[in-house]
Amino acid sequence: MIVRDRPSGIRLFFVVRGSILKRIRLTLLVNTLSAILVTLLHGNFFALKITLTTIPFTLIGLPLAIFLGFRNSTAYDRYWEGRKLWGELVLRCRSLSRQCQSFIQPPAEFNGQATDIEAARRRMIYRAIGFVHALRLQLRDRSDCGELNRWAPEAEWPRLQTASSKHDALMLELGKELGQCQRKGWIEPCLAASIDTTLSAMTAAAAACERIKGTPIPFSYTLLLHRTAYLYCFLLPFGLVDTIGFMTPFVVAIVAYTFFGLDALGDEIEEPFGLEANDLPLDTLCRAIEVNLLDSLGEPVLHPSLAPVNHCLT
Amino acid sequence: MIVRDRPSGIRLFFVVRGSILKRIRLTLLVNTLSAILVTLLHGNFFALKITLTTIPFTLIGLPLAIFLGFRNSTAYDRYWEGRKLWGELVLRCRSLSRQCQSFIQPPAEFNGQATDIEAARRRMIYRAIGFVHALRLQLRDRSDCGELNRWAPEAEWPRLQTASSKHDALMLELGKELGQCQRKGWIEPCLAASIDTTLSAMTAAAAACERIKGTPIPFSYTLLLHRTAYLYCFLLPFGLVDTIGFMTPFVVAIVAYTFFGLDALGDEIEEPFGLEANDLPLDTLCRAIEVNLLDSLGEPVLHPSLAPVNHCLT
Amino acid sequence: MIVRDRPSGIRLFFVVRGSILKRIRLTLLVNTLSAILVTLLHGNFFALKITLTTIPFTLIGLPLAIFLGFRNSTAYDRYWEGRKLWGELVLRCRSLSRQCQSFIQPPAEFNGQATDIEAARRRMIYRAIGFVHALRLQLRDRSDCGELNRWAPEAEWPRLQTASSKHDALMLELGKELGQCQRKGWIEPCLAASIDTTLSAMTAAAAACERIKGTPIPFSYTLLLHRTAYLYCFLLPFGLVDTIGFMTPFVVAIVAYTFFGLDALGDEIEEPFGLEANDLPLDTLCRAIEVNLLDSLGEPVLHPSLAPVNHCLT
Amino acid sequence: MIVRDRPSGIRLFFVVRGSILKRIRLTLLVNTLSAILVTLLHGNFFALKITLTTIPFTLIGLPLAIFLGFRNSTAYDRYWEGRKLWGELVLRCRSLSRQCQSFIQPPAEFNGQATDIEAARRRMIYRAIGFVHALRLQLRDRSDCGELNRWAPEAEWPRLQTASSKHDALMLELGKELGQCQRKGWIEPCLAASIDTTLSAMTAAAAACERIKGTPIPFSYTLLLHRTAYLYCFLLPFGLVDTIGFMTPFVVAIVAYTFFGLDALGDEIEEPFGLEANDLPLDTLCRAIEVNLLDSLGEPVLHPSLAPVNHCLT
Amino acid sequence: MIVRDRPSGIRLFFVVRGSILKRIRLTLLVNTLSAILVTLLHGNFFALKITLTTIPFTLIGLPLAIFLGFRNSTAYDRYWEGRKLWGELVLRCRSLSRQCQSFIQPPAEFNGQATDIEAARRRMIYRAIGFVHALRLQLRDRSDCGELNRWAPEAEWPRLQTASSKHDALMLELGKELGQCQRKGWIEPCLAASIDTTLSAMTAAAAACERIKGTPIPFSYTLLLHRTAYLYCFLLPFGLVDTIGFMTPFVVAIVAYTFFGLDALGDEIEEPFGLEANDLPLDTLCRAIEVNLLDSLGEPVLHPSLAPVNHCLT
Repeated sequence: MIVRDRPSGIRLFFVVRGSILKRIRLTLLVNTLSAILVTLLHGNFFALKITLTTIPFTLIGLPLAIFLGFRNSTAYDRYWEGRKLWGELVLRCRSLSRQCQSFIQPPAEFNGQATDIEAARRRMIYRAIGFVHALRLQLRDRSDCGELNRWAPEAEWPRLQTASSKHDALMLELGKELGQCQRKGWIEPCLAASIDTTLSAMTAAAAACERIKGTPIPFSYTLLLHRTAYLYCFLLPFGLVDTIGFMTPFVVAIVAYTFFGLDALGDEIEEPFGLEANDLPLDTLCRAIEVNLLDSLGEPVLHPSLAPVNHCLT
Repeated sequence: MIVRDRPSGIRLFFVVRGSILKRIRLTLLVNTLSAILVTLLHGNFFALKITLTTIPFTLIGLPLAIFLGFRNSTAYDRYWEGRKLWGELVLRCRSLSRQCQSFIQPPAEFNGQATDIEAARRRMIYRAIGFVHALRLQLRDRSDCGELNRWAPEAEWPRLQTASSKHDALMLELGKELGQCQRKGWIEPCLAASIDTTLSAMTAAAAACERIKGTPIPFSYTLLLHRTAYLYCFLLPFGLVDTIGFMTPFVVAIVAYTFFGLDALGDEIEEPFGLEANDLPLDTLCRAIEVNLLDSLGEPVLHPSLAPVNHCLT
Repeated sequence: MIVRDRPSGIRLFFVVRGSILKRIRLTLLVNTLSAILVTLLHGNFFALKITLTTIPFTLIGLPLAIFLGFRNSTAYDRYWEGRKLWGELVLRCRSLSRQCQSFIQPPAEFNGQATDIEAARRRMIYRAIGFVHALRLQLRDRSDCGELNRWAPEAEWPRLQTASSKHDALMLELGKELGQCQRKGWIEPCLAASIDTTLSAMTAAAAACERIKGTPIPFSYTLLLHRTAYLYCFLLPFGLVDTIGFMTPFVVAIVAYTFFGLDALGDEIEEPFGLEANDLPLDTLCRAIEVNLLDSLGEPVLHPSLAPVNHCLT
Repeated sequence: MIVRDRPSGIRLFFVVRGSILKRIRLTLLVNTLSAILVTLLHGNFFALKITLTTIPFTLIGLPLAIFLGFRNSTAYDRYWEGRKLWGELVLRCRSLSRQCQSFIQPPAEFNGQATDIEAARRRMIYRAIGFVHALRLQLRDRSDCGELNRWAPEAEWPRLQTASSKHDALMLELGKELGQCQRKGWIEPCLAASIDTTLSAMTAAAAACERIKGTPIPFSYTLLLHRTAYLYCFLLPFGLVDTIGFMTPFVVAIVAYTFFGLDALGDEIEEPFGLEANDLPLDTLCRAIEVNLLDSLGEPVLHPSLAPVNHCLT
Repeated sequence: MIVRDRPSGIRLFFVVRGSILKRIRLTLLVNTLSAILVTLLHGNFFALKITLTTIPFTLIGLPLAIFLGFRNSTAYDRYWEGRKLWGELVLRCRSLSRQCQSFIQPPAEFNGQATDIEAARRRMIYRAIGFVHALRLQLRDRSDCGELNRWAPEAEWPRLQTASSKHDALMLELGKELGQCQRKGWIEPCLAASIDTTLSAMTAAAAACERIKGTPIPFSYTLLLHRTAYLYCFLLPFGLVDTIGFMTPFVVAIVAYTFFGLDALGDEIEEPFGLEANDLPLDTLCRAIEVNLLDSLGEPVLHPSLAPVNHCLT
């Protein structure tokens, strides 16, 4: 995610990082060159004069606008939903920590070890940290999960390594520990139900992230949109050359820049969990949760929060 | 559901699978042929010269754009809501499994068989697997429900076979088993209420799927939209022929492709539970739930997860 | 609600049922006749030549498009919210039945009549069936509520007949019965709270239906929209006649058809609980709930589910 | 709120009540007069011929359309959210009444006065009626709250009169009474939690109403929109006079009517709790709640429900 | 936030406060000057006559409109979500106060000090006041948190000063106090779960505010939009000068005013927690919560509610 103030005036045109130009430069170049060619030939295709006028472009522009607008807001909705889900994870983790520390406590008459309770609490919160890290690794298709080692109890580690969905396995153990606490009388059933609600909300956020990752915008939309946009931009010189003459390639370049740019932006935003410049900073968010929960446990923080590198958070 | 990266550049025009062209080729062909005819006759209808200019198309284009945009986003909303509901089913099943294993346990003083409890838990989770399979079969209008046999206890099978709504019947039994567990003291009432919330959420997701399947976009919309689109595209040659001459059929073909394409896409997306290329992969989702829940029970998985065949998940 | 597949090609133009043409035929006829008149007079109004060109129509078209689009999606939102609310009623009734059968049961040490409990449960579910029927009757302004007799206990019937809001009165009794069950120890308080949540959700759905029925889209919108649309369509011939000559009435008819059609569709969809062709099939939904709940009680079903008559569900 | 069927055909143009014309007649008049002046001068401003053509209006029309559309749906969203919130209040009041009567009851072994419990229940429901009345008075900036006297217990009345937020003070007392009932054993804690959820929902609805009342659409939007609309409409004659001649004032009047009308409608709908013709009928809603709750208590109704006066509910 | 009635008629053009003109005056000036230059040179660039006609602007206008509309509603959604979240904080604080006073009470047989309970209750509500103040300070990047001193108990103050997230630390302590109350028997577990729900909702609102603050609209959108808008407005004179002559700079100024104005408004609304004229009045909201909660405790109010200064709330 790019974090910077908006450059003003003329400097706007020299920002490279975060610009969509890089993605579309090839298409744009080919399009502009073909426009130059059409202009030089005055719209003649061998002996044939091709007259299109701008009327077809006004007519096709209509459905194309519907497409672009629809796709654009759909892609952004996916991005923003992804961000909301990670916000949900942040807050549910905080609530979990608060609930564990408030409600899992030695009861009035208790003749066991208070440290046992504390250890259980700590294990639960550690698993929550592991949960978000595991989710991040899965969303980014990374199979190296050595860093999860720290957050799972020794005994559960081997089983965790073989689990297909690691965050799910951690959640299952978290729930079991909660059940044990309740049966040992360390927490009231009603309050255990409150914590269980928090766990369900974390499961829900994780499943929704997987849904976004696993379900693209229907492929036919992408296809229909790209085809129409390509036809539009590559035919445009024939429509303009008779009216605006040698300015044709210039205008075609601007129109193509906005159309292809909007389209490419949609492509980038659509999958918000990747590692591209405009994607969500999952590393930063996971680190923030880690710092938060360790803080709330009163334990020393291992790694500091992440800061933007070259205006960019990963 | 089609799962593939976007082809780039010129290859875009040669993708067939997932293209909407197949659905609209007949209409498109007739439309283009009639445009060729009009062009050859220079817009004369017998002795009568029909002059339309492009003005009417700009005027009609306005309400047509409203229609197409509205219908398009409505259809996609149905698709995405369907996907969300199945995501909800995935996560509620996971939560159910976690809750059963955390909270349905032998109480402190218990002199019965621990295996009885385990069996009850297992039956509940099996019924949940059966629930999603039964819902899938119903949404796809399939009456062969032999595969449900595995997930219902022997004793309930005959009754299940005659039930009108199989997933409903399974849910009813699931709830009854939960009630028995509570009365036997295997689970605290507060925590049983938590599980009951999960069951209600599964019922809600199933009912919402049935709502989407059972309530199409009002037929009058479809009718009005199709009529306007047909009139627009079939009259278009008369409006263009005087200005752009022999390019008329070509432009008409492109305009018709986008209009009819958008329209056909809406038709396909509108009913997301079918078996067409752009529909939701219910088989894959059900299998994923099955694998997930068996995994969480520690039981061996029967069938592996489904992978895309020819870029397509069913 | 009209339930049918989309007719294809030319047959599209001969579908009558569900077409909005019937509603707007008079206005359309007057409009077309006036266009013919204008065409014959070549845009002269007595001695005065009225020149409008199409420019004003492009300008007015803009706010008109905003209106139509806004009103269209608002009307559809009301329709779809109505459908969602009835979907909510369906599922809450199912959940209620499940909860009653799971949780209202003889406690461990119970020396009363088990049939008393069963009868209470049955009364509760019967009242829920009565609730949806009463809501339907109220939403459709029908005052004959004899059919509710079957679903209310004998003793409550006289009071129910005089109640201003029958579904409300049934819900109040349902809640009282639940309270009695809880005080008699037939259900745990926590689980009674779960059932109470279901009852509140049913109350909420009913109140929201009443809200949709009772609050139209602000009248000024309707007024402003109709006036602009009428002015637009009746002035249109003056704008077209100089350019497209004898085709004017034809084009005016098409434009008017789409504008008035969209508008009339909005009118019809806006009040989704009526008895028109595109309204929600409340009879069918109520019957489905009835069949569902009787099924879940294991009782014989009185009336079969409703099937579409002439492509139409009521 | 105006409640009437849509007038058809020509009668549409003679409806006055609810028309937005009254609000914008002055601006419209000035605009039309200036258009007449411009037409008479043939677009000359002293010796200077001002040529605008319609091109600038097409260009400015675009951002203006975005503005109007955005503002229109934002204003309507506020209106509809206001209506939903009052619908929420209606249903929560009903649920509260049901819950109080179901769950606040003499326990199994009870040796106090049953009438004490009944009185507490009655006080609670009376305070709920007072709550909605107090909220209405505050939303409409009325400081005469004598009518609240009836709904608060004698002892709380003095304190209520000095409270800054009367509905809040009533809710606080309602909550305290609930707490006392629970401590006296008249209601199970779990079920008290259910009633508390209802109270929180009522607080939420009230706070959301205050939010809508207290936070207008950002002033800069209003400013930018009005300025653009004024410039557009007052410059329009210069753009039209060369093409359509003496019809200019007529067309300007229609265009201005739709633009200013849409704008004024937004203004009216934006603050839904006032007393204008299109505002929400808070009096009617409060009365409905009052009648409902007294009905459910079995008490005689003081005032009948309100009916529309001259098609208008207040 | 600017709070004032809309000025009418001509006065509209002389409002300065709240106008977006101040932000865009430089760009607007440069743009107008360049338009004057182009007009004087009759569109000649040295010896080269640049002919653009308005066609390119109609074509580019389309994607530009999509951009502006999308960005505008996205920015407003952020603003309105921010406002909703603070409304949520207001109501949750009120509910918290009500719940504490209703449910944290001396139990039936209690032989401790009733003032201890009262003090705990008071500490909890004070921490809630501190919570909103701390959140405000963080959202506005202010590091001086001396004013929080008053709301935290003496003993927790040192730890609070070093906490990275002060509102989080206060919430943790609030939760712990609730847990203690429950273990001491001052509140039923079920009702403690209700209060815990309120605390989770406050945590959620705070986290969502941080999300809005921390996640801007993707930078590529801003970049693409600004570039297109600049190109559009600076090329516009070349397109207009041949048709409308000396009116060109005037029209360019109006078009640029609306485009840049809409864009700048988006920039301002997008970050709703700042201190600019159109931002949310966090000071006022915090003060309102403070007054509310102290009122409900029956304590004297320290500072009066804030009133608008020069039509502006901070």
